[in-house]
Amino acid sequence: MARIVMKFGGTSMAGTERIRRVANIVRKQQAAGHEVAVVVSAMAGETDRLINFCREAHALYDPAEYDVVVASGEQVTSGLLAMTLQSLGCKARSWLGWQMPVNTIEAHSKARVETIDAPEMIASMEAGAIAVIPGFQGVSADRRITTMGRGGSDTSAVAVAAAVKADRCDIYTDVDGVYTTDPRIVAKARKQKAVTYEEMLELASVGAKVLQTRSVGLAMKEGVRIQVLSSFGDEDAVPADEMPGTLIVSDEEMDQLVEQGDMERQLVTGIAHDKNEAKVILTRVPDKPGAVADIFGPLAEASINVDMIIQNVGRDKGETDVTFTVPAADLARAQALLEDRQEQIGFNRIITDDHIAKISVVGVGMKSHAGVASDMFRALSDRGINIQAISTSEIKVSVIIDEDETELAVRVLHTAYGLDAKDDAA
Amino acid sequence: MARIVMKFGGTSMAGTERIRRVANIVRKQQAAGHEVAVVVSAMAGETDRLINFCREAHALYDPAEYDVVVASGEQVTSGLLAMTLQSLGCKARSWLGWQMPVNTIEAHSKARVETIDAPEMIASMEAGAIAVIPGFQGVSADRRITTMGRGGSDTSAVAVAAAVKADRCDIYTDVDGVYTTDPRIVAKARKQKAVTYEEMLELASVGAKVLQTRSVGLAMKEGVRIQVLSSFGDEDAVPADEMPGTLIVSDEEMDQLVEQGDMERQLVTGIAHDKNEAKVILTRVPDKPGAVADIFGPLAEASINVDMIIQNVGRDKGETDVTFTVPAADLARAQALLEDRQEQIGFNRIITDDHIAKISVVGVGMKSHAGVASDMFRALSDRGINIQAISTSEIKVSVIIDEDETELAVRVLHTAYGLDAKDDAA
Repeated sequence: MARIVMKFGGTSMAGTERIRRVANIVRKQQAAGHEVAVVVSAMAGETDRLINFCREAHALYDPAEYDVVVASGEQVTSGLLAMTLQSLGCKARSWLGWQMPVNTIEAHSKARVETIDAPEMIASMEAGAIAVIPGFQGVSADRRITTMGRGGSDTSAVAVAAAVKADRCDIYTDVDGVYTTDPRIVAKARKQKAVTYEEMLELASVGAKVLQTRSVGLAMKEGVRIQVLSSFGDEDAVPADEMPGTLIVSDEEMDQLVEQGDMERQLVTGIAHDKNEAKVILTRVPDKPGAVADIFGPLAEASINVDMIIQNVGRDKGETDVTFTVPAADLARAQALLEDRQEQIGFNRIITDDHIAKISVVGVGMKSHAGVASDMFRALSDRGINIQAISTSEIKVSVIIDEDETELAVRVLHTAYGLDAKDDAA
Repeated sequence: MARIVMKFGGTSMAGTERIRRVANIVRKQQAAGHEVAVVVSAMAGETDRLINFCREAHALYDPAEYDVVVASGEQVTSGLLAMTLQSLGCKARSWLGWQMPVNTIEAHSKARVETIDAPEMIASMEAGAIAVIPGFQGVSADRRITTMGRGGSDTSAVAVAAAVKADRCDIYTDVDGVYTTDPRIVAKARKQKAVTYEEMLELASVGAKVLQTRSVGLAMKEGVRIQVLSSFGDEDAVPADEMPGTLIVSDEEMDQLVEQGDMERQLVTGIAHDKNEAKVILTRVPDKPGAVADIFGPLAEASINVDMIIQNVGRDKGETDVTFTVPAADLARAQALLEDRQEQIGFNRIITDDHIAKISVVGVGMKSHAGVASDMFRALSDRGINIQAISTSEIKVSVIIDEDETELAVRVLHTAYGLDAKDDAA
């Protein structure tokens, strides 16, 4: 017997027919002898509908009242799933954020879980009832509803899994696991049996939209084992105790999996691409103390996320070019902000380009292996792909290239690092 | 300065534009110096949408989970109204059933308010914030959401008014007050300045759909003064301190109003009609102890509301005809139930008729005046309208007639009791 937290997103909960499908998946886990808690999102589209109401009501809406309105979406689906489970003969009840309670800090619409005190819910699970929990919501110290920002249901699920000391947190989504790269680009992409928290964090941060980054960070901190799997597969084809998806685990568990022969040790785990960045070049910035702060301070204040920063040294004596990337959606705002401060910063020209892509290679293996980055540069240059900027972290190398070469670059690198599925190999 | 509870129904809350209209009405009361709490319904249609989900999820749904689902409708409108009030520059916040809290007995989907402990909310109102309260919902002793059945928002509003010791509970609806009769039938119907709780209870029970009966009963018990008024009038035309609607008050206050010359003493307050009843006649029922219990026991168990009962004595020796009315919607069920028990009850034939109408004359004045009933019978017979059954209470006389004669009967009685508006008199 294990204790399992299952999480279903908005697409899986969109309508009573799909909720019945979810209920069948949940029942199967309980029938296999597990204690089960289920965390649910609102029906797909519902949160947008509610947010629209808020915007119509007040352009500068009160986040506390916003939370009252949008938390209702998950309240509805949790009640409906509990009923549907009962209709299948399971014991079940819903536990709203304030009932469990999920205590959060009082940052409305972007709350973070502090503690979950759920002795009553755990007792109910031990007595055989399935706990159904609305994701995304909690309660503040002054007993008001809080929500955790878009995609917060993944984080709710991990927090609940930590609180009930679950053996695993199964996150059901519209993909059936974490792939070596986007299967729509590379037909030979392979589903991973397991990746580490750090790898998943890096992959999520560079565009692999499988899990919300914050949920992975929390799982790493709390040691919650995650499984990513599909809610649209054939739930009858896989025995309840198999792991059809991708596990997200600690370095230690990964080492064990490799030792047991369940996994091959890999240098590179995944190749991700992100077309939503834009590049900004400021030319002839005075090379003096404080210049960089003058550039990035205002962007940070405006909540514009700067990703890669490259400073080209010594173009002219005392001057330098500064290149960086921002989300394409923020490009116009960033440009306006910087132009307002042209005199203060002292740059000559501002050049922008949103026709770029960021290609990233991720893998814990590169901690102990030099040469991953140079292999990347060589593979790309062999195919004539020009690298416009480079940044590296301990387990990731990212490059900026022309957007038109995205798919080519991803395929070339997937082959270069030996990630192509063997069954399909030509 | 007064303390006022205002209540708006689903039609008034249907969409952000209408909510803005409501916010303007509320702001005007606050601007007049009053402390204000507002009780709101869900957007029109929303509760039906949520109930449909529940029915799809589980034909025999758990009322506790049903309450979780349907209470969300009022949660949404209360958050939206609080925001909208803020956008108009008012201080406002929502108080959900479990936050105030509204403690109810644990009868899910038909809960009744036990106590409302709202010191925090009252303090907030005294500090100038408008309290926005989702109607229809409360919380049980074991901290689960409860709801009060369809139309429960009126009752919520009265319960809140009692709890905060409000000077008045203004119930905004799609009519602008209580009329002497249905103005769609009688052009000369007059809006009443005031009616008593008892009269309103009788009028509500015989088809005047202005207020939920339970809310009037609670107001009478708690001594809450109600005003019924329209949310679709021109809110700028009436000063905040005038009473454009109909007051519902105690006998004592009514006496005062008459003494002050604000009201005329009336024998009859209103004439109501109800076409939703059906008549059942059981012929030749043995006139023995227990026969009546055999008829009405099974109907009560099946929750079929029997209204008028007439037993015609001595048709044949030892036998009697029993006539009664039930809601037309329950007629088929009632008939089947009785036919199943024909042998046990021992009746000869069952005759049903849903082509009837109940016409009622209501007024506290008839307590001290005989002759109201006989005036009614004479007025109807003068116009050739046949009376099929009669029932009376202390302040009401009801008759059953052919449905086709409904409008004629209402007009005849409206004139007979001198209720026609004088301005319009021919």
